[in-house]
Amino acid sequence: MFSVTVRDHMMIAHSFRGEVFGPAQRLHGATYIVDATFRRTALDADNIVVDIGRATDQLHAVLAELDYRNLDDESAFAGVNTSTEALARVIADRLADRVHGGHFGESARELAGVIVTLHESHVAWASYERTL
Amino acid sequence: MFSVTVRDHMMIAHSFRGEVFGPAQRLHGATYIVDATFRRTALDADNIVVDIGRATDQLHAVLAELDYRNLDDESAFAGVNTSTEALARVIADRLADRVHGGHFGESARELAGVIVTLHESHVAWASYERTL
Amino acid sequence: MFSVTVRDHMMIAHSFRGEVFGPAQRLHGATYIVDATFRRTALDADNIVVDIGRATDQLHAVLAELDYRNLDDESAFAGVNTSTEALARVIADRLADRVHGGHFGESARELAGVIVTLHESHVAWASYERTL
Amino acid sequence: MFSVTVRDHMMIAHSFRGEVFGPAQRLHGATYIVDATFRRTALDADNIVVDIGRATDQLHAVLAELDYRNLDDESAFAGVNTSTEALARVIADRLADRVHGGHFGESARELAGVIVTLHESHVAWASYERTL
Amino acid sequence: MFSVTVRDHMMIAHSFRGEVFGPAQRLHGATYIVDATFRRTALDADNIVVDIGRATDQLHAVLAELDYRNLDDESAFAGVNTSTEALARVIADRLADRVHGGHFGESARELAGVIVTLHESHVAWASYERTL
Amino acid sequence: MFSVTVRDHMMIAHSFRGEVFGPAQRLHGATYIVDATFRRTALDADNIVVDIGRATDQLHAVLAELDYRNLDDESAFAGVNTSTEALARVIADRLADRVHGGHFGESARELAGVIVTLHESHVAWASYERTL
Repeated sequence: MFSVTVRDHMMIAHSFRGEVFGPAQRLHGATYIVDATFRRTALDADNIVVDIGRATDQLHAVLAELDYRNLDDESAFAGVNTSTEALARVIADRLADRVHGGHFGESARELAGVIVTLHESHVAWASYERTL
Repeated sequence: MFSVTVRDHMMIAHSFRGEVFGPAQRLHGATYIVDATFRRTALDADNIVVDIGRATDQLHAVLAELDYRNLDDESAFAGVNTSTEALARVIADRLADRVHGGHFGESARELAGVIVTLHESHVAWASYERTL
Repeated sequence: MFSVTVRDHMMIAHSFRGEVFGPAQRLHGATYIVDATFRRTALDADNIVVDIGRATDQLHAVLAELDYRNLDDESAFAGVNTSTEALARVIADRLADRVHGGHFGESARELAGVIVTLHESHVAWASYERTL
Repeated sequence: MFSVTVRDHMMIAHSFRGEVFGPAQRLHGATYIVDATFRRTALDADNIVVDIGRATDQLHAVLAELDYRNLDDESAFAGVNTSTEALARVIADRLADRVHGGHFGESARELAGVIVTLHESHVAWASYERTL
Repeated sequence: MFSVTVRDHMMIAHSFRGEVFGPAQRLHGATYIVDATFRRTALDADNIVVDIGRATDQLHAVLAELDYRNLDDESAFAGVNTSTEALARVIADRLADRVHGGHFGESARELAGVIVTLHESHVAWASYERTL
Repeated sequence: MFSVTVRDHMMIAHSFRGEVFGPAQRLHGATYIVDATFRRTALDADNIVVDIGRATDQLHAVLAELDYRNLDDESAFAGVNTSTEALARVIADRLADRVHGGHFGESARELAGVIVTLHESHVAWASYERTL
């Protein structure tokens, strides 16, 4: 199995609901360093997993929809705790939609899966992995 | 599949028995940067894999049993080479016991697995992965 | 010259005023990985720059006053852009006050200076350096 | 499952053929930080996955065949795009040959698999994973 | 003293002349992770050292003149060993020219100095520091 | 001012004397990731600060005198707390002796200074800086 990973980041505000979150129930924020990994069983005709330029651009486009925002005000997240692991899934699913929509190019339709990892600090990170 | 990882560290002394270890047969030591990853197929009612505060505290508690010690003097490791990979298993198993014992909270009983990675330097690390 | 550095982090929300900030004028947030460096020309009687346990605790105490907060709501920052570099100074000054107040121990009164670096992402960070 | 990883690097020149590569069609170069991970279901008689000294030496030997070279001039890569993911496979396969050839020691014949990751920058990396 | 640092990278080919360089006399290449640090004694009216967006864009523009090239073919480097430390100076000087030329904005004319660090691998890097 | 830095590591056991050290008074250990920085005002005839191969070898030779040892048993450290900052000075002084002794080559006699940084974990490090 092959994989290619690209890294970008976003800076958001949000708050959590539930006693388990302690002081994180207050409005605060995070920089998420975001790694998007694309997996594939065989390389394409150019000998690559995915066009790394397109992968970088598509990840940036997905993050731009969230970046520099207060997620508490986004209708997409109404009533939802935007935990690091939940955001990893949101980003993975949006990347999957873009793969299926052809934004990564034709050969990318053969991608096997995607993994998204969000680093919230130097001591904590979360991932979501799915098939394509 | 979702995962959440927390990082901590410990500083121990030890020595190894066996020619394969060369100069590491002498009493020396290591800082282990320890990453504990908790895996789960679906998020819980709070939209998380595990309470990250509890995960941090439980990892710290497990490492506190080893930290600032000479492992050669610990009865738990009598006659055992405390290699990085062997210690990764010890820590993973102790975390698993704490998950099963309810120390991570009730919802954590649905965790699928745990991975423990010990970084012994900037150029070497080892992992152990198990189900829960 | 000797130095010792300890690392911690905080997660805050804030917004900026001024066209130069572009989309960062919206309410957003950041994880700041915070490095506090203490400098000294000669080691103390224990052969150290500073008690690293105390340094860790004091940095954590200073960050706890900011962590998990919306800085736009803090009276200390009324009318002030809480840029990364400005926050570096705030933290350095508060650490300096604690050194002068004896919170780092008597021998720490001989510290020569402090440097605070805030990493806002994997591609941007800012520092403030001052004497003590 | 256990794993042990060792890290080294190489510095090569190359160019790519195909419009997808844009400016990377020009002769340029890369530092690849190379992580080789060895996997095993049970530890050997010394309580290790693999002799980490041998693993380090063997990885270095494999990289030495590529290091400080223009890959466009290497017959092994004639007509082949030496993408990061393609090079990950080359290195993994060469490591596998050396495991099978006994260069990692007898007990290493029980290794289950190898993963090779090449970091081409702080924002992009690629992997190849195979069984042994 | 305040500072702000931004990070980018470039991927180049080159060779060195001189026995001291050993195998690096052959055509090879490098990824340079490039950190540009801007220093200033007092913050500007916006409470910043420099517009981080402009700093990022200007660093990228300077690196684009070198990126994806064989430096042996660049007239600017004819007869010159493009060592990591020498390239750090080239980039620092070009950034300084752009500060003086107003590309960083009017307030940036008060910058005190610039430091450029090029990381050529996980185990080696070089810097050049100058006043503005 | 130019600088070049090389990185290596060592793994030692030791204990501390003094209440300030708390549990670190017990025999324990550390991996130190060691960065040695060489500074110089102008580049030499080869356009470099120092032969990076020699710098790497010399740093390794200095660390080999300490690596895989219990520092409590080394006569050089009798009655001395081998704190991270104290070890940084020991290594810097030994590197300085080797520069003065010609082990870095003739041109290295023009080096202006050396800085040694020891990372004891992902959250703590110490440095010593001296002239040459």
